[in-house]
Amino acid sequence: MMQLFELCGRDEGARFSPYVWRIRMALKHKGLDFEGVPVRFLDKKPLEGAQSKTVPVLNDNGTWVKDSFEIALYLEHTYPEKPLFGGKIAEGQARLLSSFIDRTVVLGIFPMIVADIHDRLDDKNAAYFRETREKFLGRSLEETQASREGMLPAFQKALSPIRHVLGAQPFMSGDEPAWADYALFGNFMWARIASDFELLEKDDPIWDWRERMLDLFDGYARAAKLAY
Amino acid sequence: MMQLFELCGRDEGARFSPYVWRIRMALKHKGLDFEGVPVRFLDKKPLEGAQSKTVPVLNDNGTWVKDSFEIALYLEHTYPEKPLFGGKIAEGQARLLSSFIDRTVVLGIFPMIVADIHDRLDDKNAAYFRETREKFLGRSLEETQASREGMLPAFQKALSPIRHVLGAQPFMSGDEPAWADYALFGNFMWARIASDFELLEKDDPIWDWRERMLDLFDGYARAAKLAY
Repeated sequence: MMQLFELCGRDEGARFSPYVWRIRMALKHKGLDFEGVPVRFLDKKPLEGAQSKTVPVLNDNGTWVKDSFEIALYLEHTYPEKPLFGGKIAEGQARLLSSFIDRTVVLGIFPMIVADIHDRLDDKNAAYFRETREKFLGRSLEETQASREGMLPAFQKALSPIRHVLGAQPFMSGDEPAWADYALFGNFMWARIASDFELLEKDDPIWDWRERMLDLFDGYARAAKLAY
Repeated sequence: MMQLFELCGRDEGARFSPYVWRIRMALKHKGLDFEGVPVRFLDKKPLEGAQSKTVPVLNDNGTWVKDSFEIALYLEHTYPEKPLFGGKIAEGQARLLSSFIDRTVVLGIFPMIVADIHDRLDDKNAAYFRETREKFLGRSLEETQASREGMLPAFQKALSPIRHVLGAQPFMSGDEPAWADYALFGNFMWARIASDFELLEKDDPIWDWRERMLDLFDGYARAAKLAY
């Protein structure tokens, strides 16, 4: 069976990486069975098979692939049924879309849940996380997260291209969900599993889209173990 | 022959609409001949065939289509050779990409060239343009554009998802240009034709991409008549 290497919290069952969630959903989309293997920030040895220092890493019976977008392309080309892209142009576009999503959504969510993520880790990994992330942020995790109510309006406004598209189609990929949806949804799963802070308003069309995503594959994502 | 209705300046040969340029490039991509029909802000009668108040409008021998994205889909489904999307997923993704591009690139360029656009119009249309755009901007066209040097760094930074993708592939759509490239490029043609203000640095990978786009179809866009 395929192995998917996933970041976990103090609770091994809580798998919160946004990039891993992109692949979890892509594997469900393709109908491929996989075993999730927990990895911690400070124990990346299991990823050496792919010469990677970050999750996700996929081991498809001896074929190792790293980087969520590369894994998605690998799955698409190796298991072409139930397309995630359905052609070269969609693959090219998806790289651009991922780039927009990483910069607006991932970077937008990060400061609003960063202290919560810390609190979900065991002591040793929490200390590592604090040191590296505070260096990046230039201030403490708690100080950063404390102003999250103030960050919310700008974050929600940055989602306006996503909101706009939901006026014309139910999913980022059109009538049915595919890679672009999983690339976006992974970030909301990251926030959902690590934090109880609500990023969206109930009357936001993106809320409804997120509900549709939580319902996919018999409520697979909705049933995911929370870290708190 | 197909007719494409295009906004023009005082000089009828200067066709500067960013959304029209998306379709000009899409028609060249498909290898379809067309006649460009000039339209002015205050004379939208020619667009009534499509019940539209904005360009572009396409008249394909009696079939009228409005809205640049809808026209692109029409061309794709009616003339499937040389795909602009190549599948349903790419079409869905493209709607999201267009939404990102409209909000970051179109809205970013607009205040930096708005007085220049005004200066390219005949007196009657210029007066109409000033009145409507100053209402939207809340200040004069000249005052808005005067601070464009100061707007440039934020605009160039907002292009970082585009720049990032060019590290992995030569076009927005992958190895070859397609709709996502034309959707982005149309905005640069708008600025090129209406203004001599340079939006990019020479060492920016987006500059090189724009050069590649200007070279397409035997330098079709490079040969376009400037409005000044």
